[in-house]
Amino acid sequence: MTKKYVYAFHEGNAAMRDLLGGKGANLAEMTNIGLPVPPGFTITTEACREYLAGGKVFPPGLMDQVEEHLAALEARTGKRFGGEPPLLVSVRSGAPFSMPGMMDTILNLGLSDATVEALAAAADPRFAWDSYRRFIQMFGNVVMGIPHHRFDEIFQAQKEAAGVQEDYQLPPEHLKQVVARYRELVRQETGRDFPQDPREQLTLAIRAVFESWNNPRAVVYRRVNRIPDDLGTAVNVQAMVFGNMGMDSGTGVVFTRNPNTGAKELYGEYLLNAQGEDVVAGIRTPHPIRVLQEELPEAYEQLLRVCELLERHYRDMQDIEFTIEKGKLYMLQCRSGKRTAQAAIKIAVDMVAEGLLSREEALLRVDPAQVEKILYRSVDPKARLDVLATGLPASPGAAVGIAVFDADEAEKLATEGHRVILVRPETTPDDIHGMVVAEAIVTCRGGMTSHAAIVARGMGKPAVVGCEAIRIAPDEQSFTVGDRTVRKGEVISVDGSTGRVIYGEVPLVDPELSPEFRQLLTWADEVRTLGVRANADTPADAAKARELGAEGVGLCRTEHMFGQGGYHPERMPVVMEMVLAETPEERKAALEKLLPMQREDFYGILKAMAGLPVTIRLLDPPLHEFLPSAEALAVEVAVLRATGGDPAALAEKERLLRKVRALSELNPMLGFRGCRLGILYPEIYEMQVRAIFEAAVQLAREGVEVRPEIMLPLIGHVNELRQLRELVDRTARAVFAEAGVEVPYSVGTMIEVPRAALTADEIAREAAFFSFGTNDLTQTTFGFSRDDAEGKFLAQYVQQKVLPENPFVSIDQAGVGKLVEMAVRLGRSVRPGLKLGICGEHGGDPQSIDFFHRVGLDYVSCSPYRVPVARLAAAQAAVRQRSQVREIADR
Amino acid sequence: MTKKYVYAFHEGNAAMRDLLGGKGANLAEMTNIGLPVPPGFTITTEACREYLAGGKVFPPGLMDQVEEHLAALEARTGKRFGGEPPLLVSVRSGAPFSMPGMMDTILNLGLSDATVEALAAAADPRFAWDSYRRFIQMFGNVVMGIPHHRFDEIFQAQKEAAGVQEDYQLPPEHLKQVVARYRELVRQETGRDFPQDPREQLTLAIRAVFESWNNPRAVVYRRVNRIPDDLGTAVNVQAMVFGNMGMDSGTGVVFTRNPNTGAKELYGEYLLNAQGEDVVAGIRTPHPIRVLQEELPEAYEQLLRVCELLERHYRDMQDIEFTIEKGKLYMLQCRSGKRTAQAAIKIAVDMVAEGLLSREEALLRVDPAQVEKILYRSVDPKARLDVLATGLPASPGAAVGIAVFDADEAEKLATEGHRVILVRPETTPDDIHGMVVAEAIVTCRGGMTSHAAIVARGMGKPAVVGCEAIRIAPDEQSFTVGDRTVRKGEVISVDGSTGRVIYGEVPLVDPELSPEFRQLLTWADEVRTLGVRANADTPADAAKARELGAEGVGLCRTEHMFGQGGYHPERMPVVMEMVLAETPEERKAALEKLLPMQREDFYGILKAMAGLPVTIRLLDPPLHEFLPSAEALAVEVAVLRATGGDPAALAEKERLLRKVRALSELNPMLGFRGCRLGILYPEIYEMQVRAIFEAAVQLAREGVEVRPEIMLPLIGHVNELRQLRELVDRTARAVFAEAGVEVPYSVGTMIEVPRAALTADEIAREAAFFSFGTNDLTQTTFGFSRDDAEGKFLAQYVQQKVLPENPFVSIDQAGVGKLVEMAVRLGRSVRPGLKLGICGEHGGDPQSIDFFHRVGLDYVSCSPYRVPVARLAAAQAAVRQRSQVREIADR
Repeated sequence: MTKKYVYAFHEGNAAMRDLLGGKGANLAEMTNIGLPVPPGFTITTEACREYLAGGKVFPPGLMDQVEEHLAALEARTGKRFGGEPPLLVSVRSGAPFSMPGMMDTILNLGLSDATVEALAAAADPRFAWDSYRRFIQMFGNVVMGIPHHRFDEIFQAQKEAAGVQEDYQLPPEHLKQVVARYRELVRQETGRDFPQDPREQLTLAIRAVFESWNNPRAVVYRRVNRIPDDLGTAVNVQAMVFGNMGMDSGTGVVFTRNPNTGAKELYGEYLLNAQGEDVVAGIRTPHPIRVLQEELPEAYEQLLRVCELLERHYRDMQDIEFTIEKGKLYMLQCRSGKRTAQAAIKIAVDMVAEGLLSREEALLRVDPAQVEKILYRSVDPKARLDVLATGLPASPGAAVGIAVFDADEAEKLATEGHRVILVRPETTPDDIHGMVVAEAIVTCRGGMTSHAAIVARGMGKPAVVGCEAIRIAPDEQSFTVGDRTVRKGEVISVDGSTGRVIYGEVPLVDPELSPEFRQLLTWADEVRTLGVRANADTPADAAKARELGAEGVGLCRTEHMFGQGGYHPERMPVVMEMVLAETPEERKAALEKLLPMQREDFYGILKAMAGLPVTIRLLDPPLHEFLPSAEALAVEVAVLRATGGDPAALAEKERLLRKVRALSELNPMLGFRGCRLGILYPEIYEMQVRAIFEAAVQLAREGVEVRPEIMLPLIGHVNELRQLRELVDRTARAVFAEAGVEVPYSVGTMIEVPRAALTADEIAREAAFFSFGTNDLTQTTFGFSRDDAEGKFLAQYVQQKVLPENPFVSIDQAGVGKLVEMAVRLGRSVRPGLKLGICGEHGGDPQSIDFFHRVGLDYVSCSPYRVPVARLAAAQAAVRQRSQVREIADR
Repeated sequence: MTKKYVYAFHEGNAAMRDLLGGKGANLAEMTNIGLPVPPGFTITTEACREYLAGGKVFPPGLMDQVEEHLAALEARTGKRFGGEPPLLVSVRSGAPFSMPGMMDTILNLGLSDATVEALAAAADPRFAWDSYRRFIQMFGNVVMGIPHHRFDEIFQAQKEAAGVQEDYQLPPEHLKQVVARYRELVRQETGRDFPQDPREQLTLAIRAVFESWNNPRAVVYRRVNRIPDDLGTAVNVQAMVFGNMGMDSGTGVVFTRNPNTGAKELYGEYLLNAQGEDVVAGIRTPHPIRVLQEELPEAYEQLLRVCELLERHYRDMQDIEFTIEKGKLYMLQCRSGKRTAQAAIKIAVDMVAEGLLSREEALLRVDPAQVEKILYRSVDPKARLDVLATGLPASPGAAVGIAVFDADEAEKLATEGHRVILVRPETTPDDIHGMVVAEAIVTCRGGMTSHAAIVARGMGKPAVVGCEAIRIAPDEQSFTVGDRTVRKGEVISVDGSTGRVIYGEVPLVDPELSPEFRQLLTWADEVRTLGVRANADTPADAAKARELGAEGVGLCRTEHMFGQGGYHPERMPVVMEMVLAETPEERKAALEKLLPMQREDFYGILKAMAGLPVTIRLLDPPLHEFLPSAEALAVEVAVLRATGGDPAALAEKERLLRKVRALSELNPMLGFRGCRLGILYPEIYEMQVRAIFEAAVQLAREGVEVRPEIMLPLIGHVNELRQLRELVDRTARAVFAEAGVEVPYSVGTMIEVPRAALTADEIAREAAFFSFGTNDLTQTTFGFSRDDAEGKFLAQYVQQKVLPENPFVSIDQAGVGKLVEMAVRLGRSVRPGLKLGICGEHGGDPQSIDFFHRVGLDYVSCSPYRVPVARLAAAQAAVRQRSQVREIADR
């Protein structure tokens, strides 16, 4: 017995999406709930997979089953395929996941020179010949590969010859001539006649749909949308209904609610006397759906009822295709409608009020990745844009300002009150002061982890990076895109959420936390068990994070306080003094000067997070990062020597170069950094710990509740932690004794090298908490230097599918995740109350958050603007887990 | 009830070493087997530990127990402590591990102004006063801290005044004066009288011995010899016997066999009319032990019998201290004797023949770490040496040659027939041609993993590195050490096994594999289950490895064949062409030229290892390693610009600089290297694989059996391996088809990043073998860049005991080892026949080899000269495991 490859619509249902594709499953579902669906059948995705895998041969028995279902369709409709009255069908692809417009559709199949006459006789000649010319055009394009515009040219010429405006005004004789010319075109292009046998037409169409699964645009779409390549598409064969049978007929698409705002109102458009492709083709302007109420009130009523029924049935907003044939409504497709983040939120919350959804279901209806965008200003979606170029959307949000090409100039103009956009080939720490004052940043080079991208995200400013179409002419203070030039002072707009650089001032929409969004997040907080903290290095960041719902700081980096990345330039001389110290005494003298600065930093952050925990990581980067580069110095020295420069200056540079060389490293990522600094130069950590506790006791005296958590970076062996924990405790006792005040605190560690995870049981004996540094853990577990990998091979790895995705974006659960799981298990085995969190960038990635929830972490920590995302994602993880638990319990 | 802190000798035995120390346990053992041991008792190490931990207070009850045992000693000897006839005792330290000369000893304790007279009356005055002055001198030094030479000066002055040569010639009256002056010295130096109460003397002496556990030289010794710091020392209190009672008395030390050669003959020396310290003090020259046969034949006979008995009892060569008092032999100490590697081997093998040991026991008696040294030439131990300086023993072996300070000069002089020693501040790849021709290498800077050290070990040449006492004056072509200068052309000798740089030509001893050593290795091969292969990159290395017993090549690196490290300079232009290629076509053109060179390389190695497996690793290092440094180029460019140099040269340099910059990486260790090269530039690996198989089929045609194993480096994800395995298989099929010949081969992977170990089950589905690259695995698991860590913090980590030892020397079993175990378990779970080996430097480390045996690897691979070491260590691991299994079975 052969497999069942073909299902009549009434044999399927909505749950059979994998086998019947989304469209087929929904046509079946609508059929079964009694909606007016033209009859038809679906060829399974399995048939497609076998066809593609088996050297493009139909699986045995497939066409026999198609014949049987065609016979049933003939019986059902009282028409005959290739006979009289002629049965015409549509042939449409339908994959398990929606891939709109990616694959192919053929309407009016079954027409031929013979059947068109029969159709003309049964209906009317204009309609019959119009359908035939449409069929030849679509089939000729989709199946026979003739470019669309070749047909269009013939059709347009005919319209001009006939002197008509609208397609439907062309009289039958002209349509006949169009058909004749189309058939001539097919002969010229393919060397054969247009197939006249409907069964041959159908066979070729099915084959074309199968093969469209692997057309280039479908392949790209799947990669972008993370859809597996091995699913295949179903083929839906459906009796035609005709929207082109006169002015009491028509076709349209409609959403059951407004997909932009979420408002509960029909939203869509339609055309009378037209077939489906006319609506999208844009030749005639469709009418808004509300006009239908006047033009065909009865059909509109039918449509309203059907939409209401579908929403109740699917409990979601639907995107519908319909056709009206002589006043009667037919449903051709329904699917969950795509929507903006705002609409998704409003619909989900409204549907809870309407009793359609539970709160848990509502939480699952909003994509957390989309949510981040609505926390930023955005370009008004209604605005017409003059897009100059598109780069990588490195940091979300939108801004308007004048183009400036230099950080000093940016600072100057900003001081004068201008809003500026900093446009640079790429940014370096030297540009920080310009970035600080800029509304947005644009670079021509660099990826999502370039300096510009990271700094802009950290500052919460829009940025477009790697915008390679832009060429900057620094001397002219301008940039060109193609043949257009934009000079300094001209206004541009930047949309960091989409990567667009736009000419002129565009209207922006301010972000707002809508009441529905606040409602949703409240529900999320009720449901989730995973805590959400923020990574924040400044009081301002901490305050922002708190406003967005952070329950503490999960990572406060102290390197910016040391001037890294161009922050606090006034501290750099002192920091350099500290780094270049030859003896512990010299180092201590420099640290003495840094102490009050650090204390002030911690005072601000601890105050902003009063009552909440603040995890402060002691100094982590290698010291040479605070020095000029060896190469730059070597060049200066060589030039001074070659040109006989000032001997004193030369000697000084040489001295500095020697020191920089002594500190420089081949692989700084794996070098003298993190807790290794604290072990060899305990005075550095002592100063930092002292600054923290001095700030803490000062706040305690002022009545502010402080909860500092001291975190030691890069621990690989329990002995490192033991030694440094003792240093922290000793320093804390000293400060408390001096102040006569004590504050509660705890000491814990990053888990960011594999050895820490592997020996987490030993380490947990000395740690009150673990915070997984999954950025570094990913680097060491894979042996990937992120800085190098992302530029050199990671993109190609993802493209070639060597890796399923970039492991720095979403955590590698099989490898890095295994270490996390191991550390959780080992750590809790010796210290059941061990607090577990994660402060890598994965802390803001919904997929990773789901993983962290499942392995039992206590909290995630992410950048402030991702806090709402994380709250929602954490709630979803909890809901999913509960429903799995319920499922298992129900078995 | 208080603890038992004191044991009479007859209460102990040899197994109580931890509690009684080595000396105490052996004194007890000798007492129990009836040897003539002066009676005494031992204060336990536990008492010492409690004393040191408890603020230097004797544990409660200790001195009461000492009193009881003193009373028993008095009863036993018929003498009285502080009375008449006076009981004198020795007080000697004795730790659980032998720490010769590290801690303190006091003889003749119990003497005072009162008892010395009694002793003089009972024995004779000279002896009595001699004993008293010895006592004051030792006690004054050890307990009261007065420098030794202060006493010596008084004694020497007295000898001059008396006009005598030998100590024992000094008459009693003079000795009395010496005592008086000694006591005056004590008063001056300490402000108090020399203690006259024997019980006070004893209390102070015990305290001094306890505290000697932490004297600086003992602390250093323990660190060097990896002895834990928390063991403590025992104190042995023993009735004195006197070798200084006349010419029928004496004292000496003797080994039961020759500790240099292992020959079965007494070996040692003695002095008549002397006490123990005279033998070591070097004031009188002791006689060889055979002379005793003539001087005191009866005592000699006693000694022979005792030695025989001790060897039979302990089944090992013993190191003995004895005293002869008036013709009667007393044993003061016995312990396992230290010996050279040659002696260890001969003694072990001889003792099997003598029926004293089983073969398994004999295998355990030789320290594999020592064995390596005897495979190299060495400095004749009998030669007198003019040692200029001592550096790090970076590569074993010894050599003689003229000092040369420049690689070009070295090459030139070597071509002229000179033997040269290359002396450099440090070496770089630019020095390779000089290193190739040098007999040995000396550097002033750098550690055990500096370029010089690694290259020299790889070449099997002696090297001393980091010899900081040497200062090179490059312009004068000379070096100075202190006030001595050695000029180019002067002869020096280098002992890479000890780190000595010696002036002049010293006699060298050629290595020989003694018959006993061959015998031992044969036994090792019978016992071991772990295979031993070698890391070899050239046919010469492969041949050497095979000669030393390697069962294949476990790692053949291909980067040297690409010119890395200064090898094959003639290939560098082609390699650079390949690296700088802009398109796959350009790259392929360069690879075409490399193909015949690679084929020749593989032909030689596969031929040298005919019949044995050869694991060839495809190209691993990042491509920029084959290019000049960006810094050097940047300097050249800047100087050319500043000085208005040739524009064409400038443009060329700029172009090269751009390319070098594009390829350069922040963390090359974690960058674009290993299989990542093969994925992005498959043409490189294709060329290498083709070269291997073309060489293999050529050899197969010549009737040579070849067993190539293709190894892919740096695999982190199974997809990488799958893709590259397909490349290898495809290329192999192509070569076999062209040649009409097939050869067997397999494809496997390095496990050298944590993710590979964590997902070893997935990876094993695509791999016929795993080879653990524990160097890189240690780097990534710890997050240590070896290049940076060893120079910057690792030494201090070991010194501060943050890490128990350098994890690059001996594998970190708790962390890195856990990954290895996991990979073994996961890998074999899906592929039971998976072949498992290790090719990191740990493959030659005995402690690591034991671990690899226990986790069930199939083989280790190490450098050729370590192959015998590994064979022995592998056998020991097998023996230890069996005896553990037997122990468990016996329970």
